Amino acid sequence: MTSRTSVAAVPSVPRKVLTEGSGVNKSIAAIEYAVRGELVLRAEALAKQLPSVDLPFDKIVYCNIGNPQSVGQSPITFVRQVLAGVTCPSLLQPESGNVFPSDVVKRVTDVLAASHGVGAYSESKGIRFIRERVANALQARDDGVPANPDNIYLTNGASEAVKTILSMLVRDHNDGVLIPIPQYPLYSAAMTAFGGTQVGYYLDEENGWSLNMDELETRLSDARAKGITVRAIVIINPGNPTGQVLSRTNMEDVVAFCEREKLVILADEVYQKNVYIPEKPFISFKKVTHEMGADVELASFHSVSKGVMGECGLRGGYMEVVNMDRYIQELIYKVLSVSLCSNIIGQVAIDLMMTPPQPGEPSYELYNKEVDEIYGALKRKAIAMSDGLNTFEGVTCNRSEGAMYLFPRITIPPAAVKAAAARGMASADVLYCIEMLEATGICVVPGSGFLQKDGTYHFRTTFLPPEKEIRNVITSMRRFHEQFMAKYS
Amino acid sequence: MTSRTSVAAVPSVPRKVLTEGSGVNKSIAAIEYAVRGELVLRAEALAKQLPSVDLPFDKIVYCNIGNPQSVGQSPITFVRQVLAGVTCPSLLQPESGNVFPSDVVKRVTDVLAASHGVGAYSESKGIRFIRERVANALQARDDGVPANPDNIYLTNGASEAVKTILSMLVRDHNDGVLIPIPQYPLYSAAMTAFGGTQVGYYLDEENGWSLNMDELETRLSDARAKGITVRAIVIINPGNPTGQVLSRTNMEDVVAFCEREKLVILADEVYQKNVYIPEKPFISFKKVTHEMGADVELASFHSVSKGVMGECGLRGGYMEVVNMDRYIQELIYKVLSVSLCSNIIGQVAIDLMMTPPQPGEPSYELYNKEVDEIYGALKRKAIAMSDGLNTFEGVTCNRSEGAMYLFPRITIPPAAVKAAAARGMASADVLYCIEMLEATGICVVPGSGFLQKDGTYHFRTTFLPPEKEIRNVITSMRRFHEQFMAKYS
Repeated sequence: MTSRTSVAAVPSVPRKVLTEGSGVNKSIAAIEYAVRGELVLRAEALAKQLPSVDLPFDKIVYCNIGNPQSVGQSPITFVRQVLAGVTCPSLLQPESGNVFPSDVVKRVTDVLAASHGVGAYSESKGIRFIRERVANALQARDDGVPANPDNIYLTNGASEAVKTILSMLVRDHNDGVLIPIPQYPLYSAAMTAFGGTQVGYYLDEENGWSLNMDELETRLSDARAKGITVRAIVIINPGNPTGQVLSRTNMEDVVAFCEREKLVILADEVYQKNVYIPEKPFISFKKVTHEMGADVELASFHSVSKGVMGECGLRGGYMEVVNMDRYIQELIYKVLSVSLCSNIIGQVAIDLMMTPPQPGEPSYELYNKEVDEIYGALKRKAIAMSDGLNTFEGVTCNRSEGAMYLFPRITIPPAAVKAAAARGMASADVLYCIEMLEATGICVVPGSGFLQKDGTYHFRTTFLPPEKEIRNVITSMRRFHEQFMAKYS
Repeated sequence: MTSRTSVAAVPSVPRKVLTEGSGVNKSIAAIEYAVRGELVLRAEALAKQLPSVDLPFDKIVYCNIGNPQSVGQSPITFVRQVLAGVTCPSLLQPESGNVFPSDVVKRVTDVLAASHGVGAYSESKGIRFIRERVANALQARDDGVPANPDNIYLTNGASEAVKTILSMLVRDHNDGVLIPIPQYPLYSAAMTAFGGTQVGYYLDEENGWSLNMDELETRLSDARAKGITVRAIVIINPGNPTGQVLSRTNMEDVVAFCEREKLVILADEVYQKNVYIPEKPFISFKKVTHEMGADVELASFHSVSKGVMGECGLRGGYMEVVNMDRYIQELIYKVLSVSLCSNIIGQVAIDLMMTPPQPGEPSYELYNKEVDEIYGALKRKAIAMSDGLNTFEGVTCNRSEGAMYLFPRITIPPAAVKAAAARGMASADVLYCIEMLEATGICVVPGSGFLQKDGTYHFRTTFLPPEKEIRNVITSMRRFHEQFMAKYS
């Protein structure tokens, strides 16, 4: 009734339309997103003080977000050359002095021939030529399981695809989606925004964050007993923030469960190239469902932000849907068409990620050298950091089998729990992370931002800082941890 | 109840979760977006047939969407050089043979120094350095009216910004937003998706699509009488699809109205550089509200997709908010942070649009030559096309004072109205546009897709095809129009 009452408002008492509380959509207001939350804002404030104020550290080390190039990872030469070429085709002219290798020129020419360039809207689903190439690459990845370009939607990062499909799945607050705990907060944020019900299932920390079928069964029947219509399950594989990689058997159990219970599988597979243990290779949910002949609806999400490219700023992503109703696919098209299309450079980056230089091509050697360096460093840093954390008193940390994160469990003394409560913090790990930031400049995210078992405390840290810095990060974390334990014991 | 009943489902009777009707969110299903709708899908189908099937035209002429580079407009050299440079900084090395002018190198170096490059997520609001430069440019545009970088949000095109603010404004179906008729369907689509109420106000076709204050007053009180809480008004200036430019007096009336009635002003100003008549220069709503000292909340949207750059595929946009509650600004940040940030190349493009080369800089001359060519051609094509359409029997077309579109009114014979109804078409102008497409290959959008006065018929066409083609477009349209009138008379 804002408007009607405000007609009578005295001009000298200005009132706003958009205000906290009753003046704004409550679902939007309820969104939480810890990865860019309190800790980060505090870190940015400290970063501004650094030049003037005397702080116990000389820079902020951002371990709060999987943003490799912000902490020193270099982009891959081939990728940037092709993107520069499609952006400024005059660079391909001889008078520009042949700055690019011939395979880069070929890739640029092919994209430009099959599109109106990076400055024109494409089809709402993305440039068809690129979707066809993505389909071919997926077919190769999945040992011949057929892929159809019509089932591929190119989006601004994977986030846009996830939000699109969830907005269609959630009809009202009685609709639920199974979401892992801990989870990546995009899922909780989107469910909150769309007014649906999050049905949490706990990953088994004691068993390397594995996915336990009894747990799924229990959470599903509990939710149904409460009158919730569970429509889908989110599975993040490799896990974020937990870093576990699912085994084929585990995936088959999940698929059978989803087919039996009629749940859409939302497979967040953006870390499929970030797997660090040979005994557990990445397998796509699409391959498993296909080979099982399962009648289950599936959406798989991927992105150029992760993997070894780490091109977060390009916002390139895609969603492949399997076994979706034709009407639903037309509806996805319609929803995406309201934003016209995803950014074209991100679309091209998806093509480069899915189809890298091939043996014999001029860029092949350098490309592989760069990829191997990045991958090797990620693997070494993952191990160094989990090994380091496991030496801290009262800290246990599962090894990262994949992704870019560790999610160590910390023991927090009762005095610290009290102190956090007294400061009105959501959880004692917020206090832990704030004090870590203020003592060391290292910015991590409290476990409570990803959800966790009551009474347990964690934080999520990336292992992305440069190799030469990782040792110092671990040392500073250890020194802080000891001080924190001493202070509150 | 899908899930619960499906537990009992016989495996041999596969059922899907996401289905038409009760199986999908009904607000999302109700979205309509004509610009990428039925006509375009038909056009794409015809384009596929062209090589094999004998059709009365040799190509599709896409006049359905403001996508200049898809119909031959060239990108601006300076813009693409800077974007290529930030994408592939090695091009700045001497060994790459100084391919870029020195001011391009300077722009690239400055952006890279102030960011982590195009491959890293930026702050959720966008790179601060760019927001500061945008603020300076806005201050210059508005003759010194202060602009604050903290009030600027860089987004993936303007669409993302519009959807973000509407999602916060609409609390439930009783909340309404005043939206022009005809309108750009992003607004109706977003209102439908968020479950709010569109309160249409008619632009006055007889008076050059002007905005009539009595009409606003009437629509507002009618809506309130129905129990609708009207929270905001959308104003598209220059207009889309109507092309009118608001006069200062008209804007002042609107601002006073919004202040009195406590309505947020959503100012779609993406065509601010597309004004073709000297007597009506573009004036920003921010400047008018500031100079009136009005206490009104305002959000202004802009984009790199229009203007003379026409860089639709880059998806660069921004929103500047004025007089917004601090909490609301933090909430906008939180909503955007769930998608992490907008694509960085689009962010850089916004900087280039707002701060072009300056006199004395090496790129200045070529930049202005290219801009003048594009602008001059747009202006000539706008006039040629409205003049042409006005010679058609039973067609009246207001001149385009701005933007990229014409919205001619057509007289449709009763027989055609019957035929359209018999084919279950939403409006007789759908039949008109489909038959135009099939006869000429010219793809325009039915007026019904933008809403219009009952019993009136229109279509929206761009005037973007190359100058040498415009004559043919007009000739083909006329020939079709005569055939259509003859066929149904």
